[in-house]
Amino acid sequence: MPIALLTDFGFQDSYVGVMKGVIATIAPTAQLIDLSHALPPQDLYAARFTLLSAYPYMPPGTVYLVVVDPGVGTQRRAVAVRTSQGIFVGPDNGVLSGIWQSNCQRNQGIVKAVELTNVDYWRSPHPSTTFHGRDIFAPAAAHLANGVPLDNLGARIDPQSLINLPLQAPIATAKGWTGAVQYIDHFGNAATTLLASTVTVSDWSVTIGERTLPGSQTYEDVLTGQGLALVGSHGFVELAVNRGSAQQQFGLAVGDRVELTLHPSPAPCDPA
Amino acid sequence: MPIALLTDFGFQDSYVGVMKGVIATIAPTAQLIDLSHALPPQDLYAARFTLLSAYPYMPPGTVYLVVVDPGVGTQRRAVAVRTSQGIFVGPDNGVLSGIWQSNCQRNQGIVKAVELTNVDYWRSPHPSTTFHGRDIFAPAAAHLANGVPLDNLGARIDPQSLINLPLQAPIATAKGWTGAVQYIDHFGNAATTLLASTVTVSDWSVTIGERTLPGSQTYEDVLTGQGLALVGSHGFVELAVNRGSAQQQFGLAVGDRVELTLHPSPAPCDPA
Amino acid sequence: MPIALLTDFGFQDSYVGVMKGVIATIAPTAQLIDLSHALPPQDLYAARFTLLSAYPYMPPGTVYLVVVDPGVGTQRRAVAVRTSQGIFVGPDNGVLSGIWQSNCQRNQGIVKAVELTNVDYWRSPHPSTTFHGRDIFAPAAAHLANGVPLDNLGARIDPQSLINLPLQAPIATAKGWTGAVQYIDHFGNAATTLLASTVTVSDWSVTIGERTLPGSQTYEDVLTGQGLALVGSHGFVELAVNRGSAQQQFGLAVGDRVELTLHPSPAPCDPA
Repeated sequence: MPIALLTDFGFQDSYVGVMKGVIATIAPTAQLIDLSHALPPQDLYAARFTLLSAYPYMPPGTVYLVVVDPGVGTQRRAVAVRTSQGIFVGPDNGVLSGIWQSNCQRNQGIVKAVELTNVDYWRSPHPSTTFHGRDIFAPAAAHLANGVPLDNLGARIDPQSLINLPLQAPIATAKGWTGAVQYIDHFGNAATTLLASTVTVSDWSVTIGERTLPGSQTYEDVLTGQGLALVGSHGFVELAVNRGSAQQQFGLAVGDRVELTLHPSPAPCDPA
Repeated sequence: MPIALLTDFGFQDSYVGVMKGVIATIAPTAQLIDLSHALPPQDLYAARFTLLSAYPYMPPGTVYLVVVDPGVGTQRRAVAVRTSQGIFVGPDNGVLSGIWQSNCQRNQGIVKAVELTNVDYWRSPHPSTTFHGRDIFAPAAAHLANGVPLDNLGARIDPQSLINLPLQAPIATAKGWTGAVQYIDHFGNAATTLLASTVTVSDWSVTIGERTLPGSQTYEDVLTGQGLALVGSHGFVELAVNRGSAQQQFGLAVGDRVELTLHPSPAPCDPA
Repeated sequence: MPIALLTDFGFQDSYVGVMKGVIATIAPTAQLIDLSHALPPQDLYAARFTLLSAYPYMPPGTVYLVVVDPGVGTQRRAVAVRTSQGIFVGPDNGVLSGIWQSNCQRNQGIVKAVELTNVDYWRSPHPSTTFHGRDIFAPAAAHLANGVPLDNLGARIDPQSLINLPLQAPIATAKGWTGAVQYIDHFGNAATTLLASTVTVSDWSVTIGERTLPGSQTYEDVLTGQGLALVGSHGFVELAVNRGSAQQQFGLAVGDRVELTLHPSPAPCDPA
């Protein structure tokens, strides 16, 4: 089974390489797919967004190894959670919770959850207090990729007890929806919390600060250097600049409030 | 067959990981080789240079997946091109054109070219308008790595119709050649457009601005901190500083004009 | 056999990808593990630290391909060294020497060392003078991963002749030990030269400049934003800030002097 890795470890240090060495020692044939290792350090929200954007495209049965873990060495639990999409391994700090939490439902799709308490599946019975990625999470993911049953890794826990990050659900307004910028990518495109499903008409726009961006189909619907809004490949409304950076041009930051306005089409023969 | 990936997606986001997940779903055993994902965003020239520098070292039969695609979602074509070196998949915006274009010849070595029009080989018949890497290019590369015939992926196109980036060929001068800086690497070494073949004598130098750098064999031919010129590992004349950064020390930028001067050896017994 | 790669090549250019292409051509099934490619350019000490931190976690028999090579193209030797831990391939400039050098012993554990003089195992008999990673080191690592005997690759050399980087051993003081910051990671945590074995009591502290940090078990032993010292996952005393960056908060740099103070426990019933 493939293992997909998501961390905030960056690329300078050998932390990711060390986890891969631990995995290769236990599961030499497991295919490794890097989702990202350059998340903003300790940013659980960016990690949740990235995992949600990526996991639908991984092979069936993938084991997800997610280590964004500011509470490493404390009493926060180390967990593995099976859903219909695969097995998710990481700290119980909400970073995984996007998988089973939606606007409509909590803990949806969880088949089974365990706490990684069985030291036989740790790298050593005396793990480092600062690098559970190496000593607990990577070995767990490797054993799971090898087909070890989830229950072997530790005690069953109640899925309802798993920690959820607060949702940033869009809020309905008179003219549409209000939300916020939740993630800004490498190109300076800003993903908002407005789901694709909020865009229910073909004529729409997004207002941010004093600026209003036209709802569009693709970057080149506007002139080079002009701003636009579209439904991004991740399934959220995205603010962008054609061949430019919306972040730089508009000074965007995570948390900035955005207003989606839906412009209903006039009825046929509407006298207006 | 291995797949070599070249994009400007960067490392912060999961875009590369998502493409790898799509590939692993279709072609689980394909070996993936990252050429670079940190190209300057939307820089077709840097992408062409990088692809040209790297492809001679890949295994025979490699499929190249190149996604530098500022025109994603527009009418620009998505193509796959077979040459004697492998199969090149990407947008038809010139980014691939270094492979079949030289000073002497256009479209050399192309065996067959198709437009990726067959939706059966897309990830979905309704691709994202902003991420053809995920929905069209990565699936095409994966199917090709699986041995699917090129013709299955879409309609044959005339190789002469493929878009070529303008060449930056060196121009002969009275004393040698003139060219430009075309790429600056991580170490601050500057690759010029002067081909190795322009260096036809053992005594030569390169002038940039008011500075003249001695033609050398290796970095340590000059003292630490001194500048030099040599034939780089990519096959172009390169400006460098021994144990330093030519970019920083000399304030170099892509496009800077350089002059190569060839110093003919005096004939034997020349009274001078 | 897996090949673990460690370079200062960065991620912008295709240098790492080119080495992987060379390896894949020679050893198509070798598993590749990236330790780091973002070492500070030409920093032999950072490379030694990273290699030492990572190699204990790689699978048995791993071949290490280490290319931090400011003297490329000069008379410095290209070597391969077998120890009980694996085979280490790289320039003979001290970058590998952490493997066989300790406070107590030089050249420990070396089974055999050769200079890579056999051009049959180079990529070409005329290697680039600036990219031995591509033309000499990567082919050597690939052939070794294929099981080619070490002696085939070149002439045996005396292990005592291998270059060692100077050690930065801690020095005993009246109250404990003195050492220095040797490496600062992506999170701003500072690894010192103080080995875990210098921490012989449970009550200890580290002084840096005018600041004294409490010896701790884990980051969360102090309040958010507070500094601490602990034994890092790499086996050295580390300076950190809970959910912050010690580098930024304390203005740390490699080479900064640190003082470890051991506070002996009072004897039971000590009147004090």
